[in-house]
Parts: sequence; C-alpha cells; structure tokens
Amino acid sequence: MLDRLDHVGIAVEDLDGALSFYERTFKITAAHRELLADHQIEVALLDLGGSHVELLQPLRAGSAVGRFLEKHGPGLHHVAYRVEDIVATLTELSEAGVELVDPVPRRGVRDTKIAFLHPRSVGGVLTEIVEYGDDH
Amino acid sequence: MLDRLDHVGIAVEDLDGALSFYERTFKITAAHRELLADHQIEVALLDLGGSHVELLQPLRAGSAVGRFLEKHGPGLHHVAYRVEDIVATLTELSEAGVELVDPVPRRGVRDTKIAFLHPRSVGGVLTEIVEYGDDH
Repeated sequence: MLDRLDHVGIAVEDLDGALSFYERTFKITAAHRELLADHQIEVALLDLGGSHVELLQPLRAGSAVGRFLEKHGPGLHHVAYRVEDIVATLTELSEAGVELVDPVPRRGVRDTKIAFLHPRSVGGVLTEIVEYGDDH
Repeated sequence: MLDRLDHVGIAVEDLDGALSFYERTFKITAAHRELLADHQIEVALLDLGGSHVELLQPLRAGSAVGRFLEKHGPGLHHVAYRVEDIVATLTELSEAGVELVDPVPRRGVRDTKIAFLHPRSVGGVLTEIVEYGDDH
C-alpha cells in the first residue's frame, strides 16, 4: 500500500539559506517553491529522481512547524509515501487502528491531496500520505 | 552530487514489532535484515522501489542509536544519499566546510561503503552517504 517513498520533510529556520546550502554544497536543485497559507509554511522541493527532499519554513512562530522548530530545532520533520487513492488508504489505515491527524485530505504542495498520520501510531514518525493529481 | 535519495533511517526499540507493523499495516515488505556488530545495531530494509526505509534497533543501550532512543525516543534518525564515489564525495564535502563524522568510509548494510556527515553542518539533519558495491 505505502510502497513508494515520496519525500522526506525537513524543518528549516531560513529557507533561502537552506536552499543555498543544498544547491551549493550537495548540488541538489530546487524543483519547486510554494507558499502554503493553509499550512502556514513556505516549501521548497529538491529533486532526487523519483523522490524529494521537502524543506519547510514556518510562516509564523505558533504554527505546527513553528512549534516543532521551537521544541526540536531544525531537522527531520516527516516522511511521506505516495498512494494511488488517498481516501481509500485513509479508510484502510483507520480500520487498522492508525490514528489520523487528517481524517479528510487537505491540499498540499503542487495541488496534491495530503493527510498526516499521528506519530503515536507510527513509532514516533510523523507520516504523510500523498495523492498526486492527473497532471503529475 | 547528492542527487539520489537512498534511504530514511528510523530508530526503533523493537525491530520485530516495527517490521510487523510496517508489513501488516503499510504493506511494505522487508527486503533484507542484517546485524551490524560494528555499528551496534540490527537493521531491516523495507523496499520502496528505488529507495528504502531502514529500521534500526540498537544492540545495547550505550551505542549511538541507543543513546538517540534514550534522548529522543523512537522516530526519524537520518537520511541517506547514494553517491558514485564516496571517497571523492567526502573530500569535496570536507573542502566545502562540511564536518564529517566519518572521514574514512565504514562498512554498511549489504557491503555498502557509508559515511555520516555531522548534523551541525547539515541544518540539524544527520546525513549519510552510501556507495554501493559492484553487485548492486
């Protein structure tokens, strides 16, 4: 079911600085950049062939990613798997006893549908599932 | 340079329990399991097409992953990129100012050569590079 890794999410304090580091030091190019007002973050996607690194900078301190930074500092934030049918997958996961942060999918970067699973249900790992639109 | 995601490392307290969860709930099959005495861990690789989730259980409390679990609890531990030439990449990264945990590669899972970069140099992310042998 969750057999394709989509991306690893990394929380950063300074998106421009982080992008510059990944581009200059690791030679990984940003494929996309987007402000997601609903999630209170600005995001940059670094292209790694079939998967991505997603750099996340909070837009304000009290947001979910802002609170993460306050508590843990910058670093690994979540892991995301690509699924074919996010609604069917959420139903299946919920029936298997996984606690859903988002019982209903929300809009993610590049018009994807996304939902988070609670880290308490996934061995401490904040886990996201992603369904791509037809144009991907 | 680091343009291919190899795996995401996840620290677990109970490898059998974690494997059973990923296999039964997420339908991700373990491709490989190995005890790495040098690193004081037992590892299972979950196959995700081109990349992997690597589940890590420490063999004893005072080991690197054991100390991570004590401090943070189970969860995301590191991210790893695949490189063609690990020695050349370490030289290049060191010259770019990245602090190396392993200036000389060590043996990793499935006879890979691996080296870790210090999270202080990579925005709080413990980062690994991996060179595969000829048989991969």
